[in-house]
Amino acid sequence: MDIQTSFLDRLFESGLLIDTGVDGLYGRSAQFEDVIAAFERLIDRFGGADGAEVIRFPSGMNRAFFETSGYMKSFPQLAGTVHSFCGNELDHMSLLKCMEVGEDWTKDQEATDIVLTPAACYPLYPTVAKRGPLPESGALFDLQSYCFRHESSKDPARQQLFRMREYVCMGTAKHVTDFRQSWMSRGVEMMTAVGLEITIDVANDPFFGRAGKMLANNQRDQKLKFELLIPITSSAKPTACMSFNYHQDAFGAKWGLNLEDGSVAHTACVGFGLERIALALLHHHGLNTVAWPESVRKALWG
Amino acid sequence: MDIQTSFLDRLFESGLLIDTGVDGLYGRSAQFEDVIAAFERLIDRFGGADGAEVIRFPSGMNRAFFETSGYMKSFPQLAGTVHSFCGNELDHMSLLKCMEVGEDWTKDQEATDIVLTPAACYPLYPTVAKRGPLPESGALFDLQSYCFRHESSKDPARQQLFRMREYVCMGTAKHVTDFRQSWMSRGVEMMTAVGLEITIDVANDPFFGRAGKMLANNQRDQKLKFELLIPITSSAKPTACMSFNYHQDAFGAKWGLNLEDGSVAHTACVGFGLERIALALLHHHGLNTVAWPESVRKALWG
Repeated sequence: MDIQTSFLDRLFESGLLIDTGVDGLYGRSAQFEDVIAAFERLIDRFGGADGAEVIRFPSGMNRAFFETSGYMKSFPQLAGTVHSFCGNELDHMSLLKCMEVGEDWTKDQEATDIVLTPAACYPLYPTVAKRGPLPESGALFDLQSYCFRHESSKDPARQQLFRMREYVCMGTAKHVTDFRQSWMSRGVEMMTAVGLEITIDVANDPFFGRAGKMLANNQRDQKLKFELLIPITSSAKPTACMSFNYHQDAFGAKWGLNLEDGSVAHTACVGFGLERIALALLHHHGLNTVAWPESVRKALWG
Repeated sequence: MDIQTSFLDRLFESGLLIDTGVDGLYGRSAQFEDVIAAFERLIDRFGGADGAEVIRFPSGMNRAFFETSGYMKSFPQLAGTVHSFCGNELDHMSLLKCMEVGEDWTKDQEATDIVLTPAACYPLYPTVAKRGPLPESGALFDLQSYCFRHESSKDPARQQLFRMREYVCMGTAKHVTDFRQSWMSRGVEMMTAVGLEITIDVANDPFFGRAGKMLANNQRDQKLKFELLIPITSSAKPTACMSFNYHQDAFGAKWGLNLEDGSVAHTACVGFGLERIALALLHHHGLNTVAWPESVRKALWG
């Protein structure tokens, strides 16, 4: 049994996560949710004074915006489209017959207007673009939602439905790279406060296919993505618990995000993998949160 | 312009809800989320002493359990299955070509193991069944999740992705019907505390097709479903903001939920439509929560 399975088993046994029969899809206990809520309050304490606009999108987004985003070019294997039955009563009867004999009943489901949100900030850009030019002082948003990634794994830190908290900054290149830099410092400070040892490293997204390798190399060369890594299920391959992304003016150009002086906005986002952070805490300090070190409890629950 | 559109427009203008370009799929402002959080704390105050086990499932569930549930028999039009791209690099190239020329790129998406949760309690029954017999004193669960229903509407009270808070009770027929009865009283008390005028009425689920009419009539005749109704977008057709459902032993038999004495468990659930309740409050007391009557603010924010 590998170390990932055994941590997952311990999480199931303790009741912190609840097996649903699908790898990467779990229920959460009150104690698990309490850790996430406490960590989100810690995020609020670090980011609250910045005056970000809070928006909460559901776990699905407009398919048209998703198509424009280019996600299917880069990560087709991870996306989840939502499909529904759109037939009449006769179609319904054959669907039920299909189910009865154990055949594939899903092949006639039709795509709806909704796609599962792949990262909390995806629905934001087209929303902000509709508002008109951004002030030259920039704009800042605070987001959180369940996100979907179609990747089955027994690593509890790689879930198919998980929560991402994000701050998104729009403005000049200097403004958004300063924002990213300040969150890298804050990230180190926050994780130190909760007793986690971390490293920060240049990273790349899991672009699809051979052509994706070039995109990944380019992203690394230009240092567009950093990750804050914490050992969870492997000390050799620590898990990305935060990411710090500079999109240059790519999203600004794609979505028509302009500053008042007419220039294209640069954007950056900082994301917290909330389940991963909770799991890092549970792995490092033990499965019983009451027995966590006093300093950690104080940082989280005051 | 009908009254529903105009309430939706006012919600968009005030920023409480955020247009995503898809009817029934909206972003939420901090103020909107604050109303939901406050109402959930009110629910906690009424239900907290009952000692329910808190479980939080994500917005998706195991497709195999969904199939067993029989949801596709009764409500095929509302369900949302999650599909993904499972091809190789060549398939990816033809997918991208498809998108480029504006053809339907979704037809080759394949169903994953995950279906969007249609009601917060659906993932619970198979989870509890795996634990073995229930104590004769019964069991009580506290759930909340985003749920999906594929129904496009300009009525803000009919959203495609919305949150449902639920209590689910399992035990003898008397135990679970007493539970349901007590929440009907609590529901009236809670809504009175927040200044909303309500009625409670026998109801039925939106079963699909002509055969569904019989199921609906049967459900009404046996008083298996009650709804707590509040006028939101129409006073002639008030909106169901809570529902009180007695499943008899149907779910117990389907999922193998037994009491320790070997009898099949009866089940009942009480659901809060959190967005609908927030909208009822906003409609009745105005879009600025700071200006709500003092008694209502006190009940919600203490």
